[in-house]
Amino acid sequence: MGVYEETLEANQRHAESFSLGHLPMPPSRKLAVLACMDARLTVENLLGLKTGEAHIIRNAGGLATDDALRSLIISTRLLGTRTIFVIEHTDCGMLTFGDDQLRQQLRTETGQDAAHLHFHAFSDLRANLLAQLRGIRENAFLPRDIELHGFIYDVRSGRLQEVREGAAGARAASLSSR
Amino acid sequence: MGVYEETLEANQRHAESFSLGHLPMPPSRKLAVLACMDARLTVENLLGLKTGEAHIIRNAGGLATDDALRSLIISTRLLGTRTIFVIEHTDCGMLTFGDDQLRQQLRTETGQDAAHLHFHAFSDLRANLLAQLRGIRENAFLPRDIELHGFIYDVRSGRLQEVREGAAGARAASLSSR
Repeated sequence: MGVYEETLEANQRHAESFSLGHLPMPPSRKLAVLACMDARLTVENLLGLKTGEAHIIRNAGGLATDDALRSLIISTRLLGTRTIFVIEHTDCGMLTFGDDQLRQQLRTETGQDAAHLHFHAFSDLRANLLAQLRGIRENAFLPRDIELHGFIYDVRSGRLQEVREGAAGARAASLSSR
Repeated sequence: MGVYEETLEANQRHAESFSLGHLPMPPSRKLAVLACMDARLTVENLLGLKTGEAHIIRNAGGLATDDALRSLIISTRLLGTRTIFVIEHTDCGMLTFGDDQLRQQLRTETGQDAAHLHFHAFSDLRANLLAQLRGIRENAFLPRDIELHGFIYDVRSGRLQEVREGAAGARAASLSSR
């Protein structure tokens, strides 16, 4: 069986034991998480969240793109979200290529001009995360009093490390137990 | 304790029993799932996916926006994805407002002109899902031979229903056991 058949069989089993049909639309923890699409991040597991507790927004990199901001505006303005987490992670695919390189590859593979596409690859994980926090903080349409936290998830250890915005630039506060 | 403290405590426990530090970057099922950010969808659970198996891309609505296409291009062209699922769902928040209404609300609440913002609210779930499938199918930079499936997830029953593209328009193929 391929992934299509196997996941649909899995959904049959999921539906047979499903008991969450009563959950309301707004996330009960008033939380939205913006995270990378990476397969190694099961966001609910690494944050101990249950179904119904948080909006989860994901894209390549965990970036505060216009589309992620669209989702965050809807989450905060229409559905009660008061806290936003941004989660990037070690060994991210976005650290392994450059936009120019992918544009060239696409041109070679498709024959189409990809010069107008932006992939937002980056080389400094911490600086990139801080830029996303800034983009959210400075967005004119998100509530001023939102609680915002940024984290780097270590895919080798399963551990989150908070990266704090600060007047003096990047300061990291490890949340690891020692 | 608030959500910040509780989720970080949960991450401590997650890290203490973490055993997935060996997983490689590419998703092992060569699958990318584009789904709505809705709190009632725990995508891995409803598809029976394990950590490491699939890229998961999420936004308000589960829409094939330019940003979602950016993520899908990276997933397919750089990280081996061969199958894409799009999952929208019943009782979606995107069915409950209009773009004009939210723009007006934002103008009232922030004093800023929101006329340039697009939220992509929609009124017909099935038609909207088919439009996303078409957007992916017609994107010039995604591989021609990608396997693409669209589903509506019923938040009351936990069940996926496939919605198939077809020459005669929308045809639905229920995958429910009967």
